[in-house]
Formats: sequence, structure tokens, C-alpha cells
Amino acid sequence: MKLERTERSRLRRSHERGSFDRDTINQILDATPQCSVAYAIDGKPYLTPTFHWREGNHLYWHGSSASRMIRQSTGAEVCINVHILDGFVMARSAFHHSANFRSVTLFGQAFKVPDEDKAARLDAFVEGLWPGRTGILRPMTAQEVKGTTILGLEIKEGSAKVRTGPPIDDDEDMSLPIWAGVIPVRHVLDAPITEENVPEDVQIPQHILDYSLG
Amino acid sequence: MKLERTERSRLRRSHERGSFDRDTINQILDATPQCSVAYAIDGKPYLTPTFHWREGNHLYWHGSSASRMIRQSTGAEVCINVHILDGFVMARSAFHHSANFRSVTLFGQAFKVPDEDKAARLDAFVEGLWPGRTGILRPMTAQEVKGTTILGLEIKEGSAKVRTGPPIDDDEDMSLPIWAGVIPVRHVLDAPITEENVPEDVQIPQHILDYSLG
Repeated sequence: MKLERTERSRLRRSHERGSFDRDTINQILDATPQCSVAYAIDGKPYLTPTFHWREGNHLYWHGSSASRMIRQSTGAEVCINVHILDGFVMARSAFHHSANFRSVTLFGQAFKVPDEDKAARLDAFVEGLWPGRTGILRPMTAQEVKGTTILGLEIKEGSAKVRTGPPIDDDEDMSLPIWAGVIPVRHVLDAPITEENVPEDVQIPQHILDYSLG
Repeated sequence: MKLERTERSRLRRSHERGSFDRDTINQILDATPQCSVAYAIDGKPYLTPTFHWREGNHLYWHGSSASRMIRQSTGAEVCINVHILDGFVMARSAFHHSANFRSVTLFGQAFKVPDEDKAARLDAFVEGLWPGRTGILRPMTAQEVKGTTILGLEIKEGSAKVRTGPPIDDDEDMSLPIWAGVIPVRHVLDAPITEENVPEDVQIPQHILDYSLG
């Protein structure tokens, strides 16, 4: 199943690294909650880093209802990018240095999730990251849900771009006595730091210990 | 030394976490080469992840002269964000979950670096990440420099935003038997993978072994 290739989603550079495949796109979107949302105000670009989550063919993000990003991108065109750096690619010439990465860029009009659906969406956000966590938290209050706006985007216009593997040098440079290779990069989670007021008999939940990123 | 607070750079939410301090901004810009560049085409937002480097009060990024991002943002308004995720902040209520992070957002008009300055800028990019590396690489050709466009932005409008520390729960939730705390996140570099054609007597350079991120 592929997304339709459009003028703004087609890959112009290194298009052999691009993909419109929905599974490829979803895997990248699901590998990290980190994304960037671009929007325009009076035709000028703005950019806000935030967290996203995916449910089926929709991507969601949230914020305070009073935030500029939320107010200005509701019902407006947005461009969302998820980018995971996997390595520095070190070539024999500066020109062929590169990066290994997984990236997805999506385009479309952001819609506001209706009030009656917000609590379910927020639960899905938390459960998607830490299964079981909503069951142990103090329940959300009506006021908290009210102060939060959730925006959504149908995943229908966009593409993935992925680079893997070693540097690709010019043929005539391959035998030069210059070190070339890849420095792999990954996100690691260190041991959780318990907040100082947590009662001593409260254990770190399994969903925290099991969590990984990337 | 502080950047001037402007309508688009002032911190609207959690402004106590914001800063216009140039040293704070520079430290974050220098901690990672990863950034996102937002630009507009016909008033619609676009976003491209790329690498940046800083020289004094200027931020630079580069790309193929044929790329959409380069073509459309030359001489145009851009918004650039550098965002480093430092931890997941796990509270006793879903509402107070947060993230620890260091973030810088800059605004301004991107200028094209003159042809005669490009080679020096690209050297500064490589040397800033891996001191000594340009001295061992096959020198850039005129054709390679020609095919690369470097854009710059004066660092004069923007702000940093930083969150550190434990979750901040409501007073009445503090004694609940719910685990709360921080899951620290960081980028690590794994052992370099040497490309298979590198001669056996070529050692991994010290600037590769010494490199760290974040």
C-alpha cells in the first residue's frame, strides 16, 4: 500500500532512497515520538518540536490550547517531519560525507480532534509509549482535558527517505590511504531516576523498564 | 549578551524556561549538528532536516544547489530549530508528563554564502565536528564546491528553551502511590565501522575516536 506521489512529496534528491510505502512510513513514525511541526503565519515559516503518536492512518500531536503552534496550525497546512539519525558517514572526500538516517515528511491540513474524543486520544498516546501506564495514573480531570488541544493529520501525502550503509566514494578515491566508514548513532535510555517523594515501596513499573527508543 | 526579544521569538508558554542569552543559545547550537529548517513556498510550510554549523554569530547549513530546500530558502525567511531530547518526564498524572530538552529556535532571512567563501565554510563545518579531518581528506574539487550551496543566517532573532529536572505534579498528587521520575535519554556513538576497502594499515583517526554528541 503506497501513498500517492504528489508534487510536494516526491523526492527530488537521491530519489532512490525515497519511499511512499505506508509500512515503511509507519515504522519510522512509530520508532520515536519526536517530530517537528512546521506551519506558516502570514506566509512566514514557524517550526515547533513536539511529540506525536500514530493511530492507524492518522498522526496526532497535542499542546496547550493557548500555544501559538496549536492556534496557528489548527485547520491550516502543516508539514511534519520525523527524523532519526542512525550514523555519521565518513568518506574519503568531504563532498561524500553523509548521514545514515530514517526520515518521514508528511503534508496536509491539520484538524482539531473533537472534544469528546480527546481523552481517548490522549490515552492512546500514553499507552502507545508505555503500555499499562494510564491504568496506574491519577485520572485526567475535565479541566486538564479541556486545556489540551489535539491536532490530527491524515497520513495521505508524504514520503519516507532512508539512507543506510557505508560511504560511497568516487572510484578513483577508493584506494587512497584515508580512513572511511560509519560512526553509528543511537538514542539510549539510562536508568530511570525516581522522583524524591515517591513512596519507598513503589516499584519502577515494567513499562518504564521495557521502554526503548529508535 | 542577549538577543532582542521580538514578537515571534518571545516565549509564550513556560516562558520561565526560555532564554535570549547568546551563550546559552550557542551551547545548544554547538551540542549537535542536527537541525530542522522550515521555509514557505506559496505561503505553505515545508521542513527539511539537515546539519548545521556555527561560526561566531552566524549559523550555516548546506545542500545541493539543486535541492528544493536550498532553492526556496535562499534569500527567504526561514525558521531553524535545534532540539535535543534529554529525558522523558514521567508524572503521577498524564497531564504533567513532559520532556527534558534543550531547544533553540532562530528566525531570519537566509543568505547565500558567496562562491569565494564556500570552501572555507565547508572546511569549518568538517573541522568543527572532527578537528584535523580536512587535512587528511582528498581535497575538494572546484566542481564539488560549485555544486554545493551554503546558506547562512545571522543569529540575531530567536530564543532557547530548556527543561531540566523531575516531574512537577499537583500538590495533592504528591503522596499517591504512583511511580514518577525521569527516564534520561542521550545519543551515543557506537564503535566506528571501517569501510571494507580501507587499507589495513590505515588506523581510525583520533578525531573519530574522540567525537561525541549532545
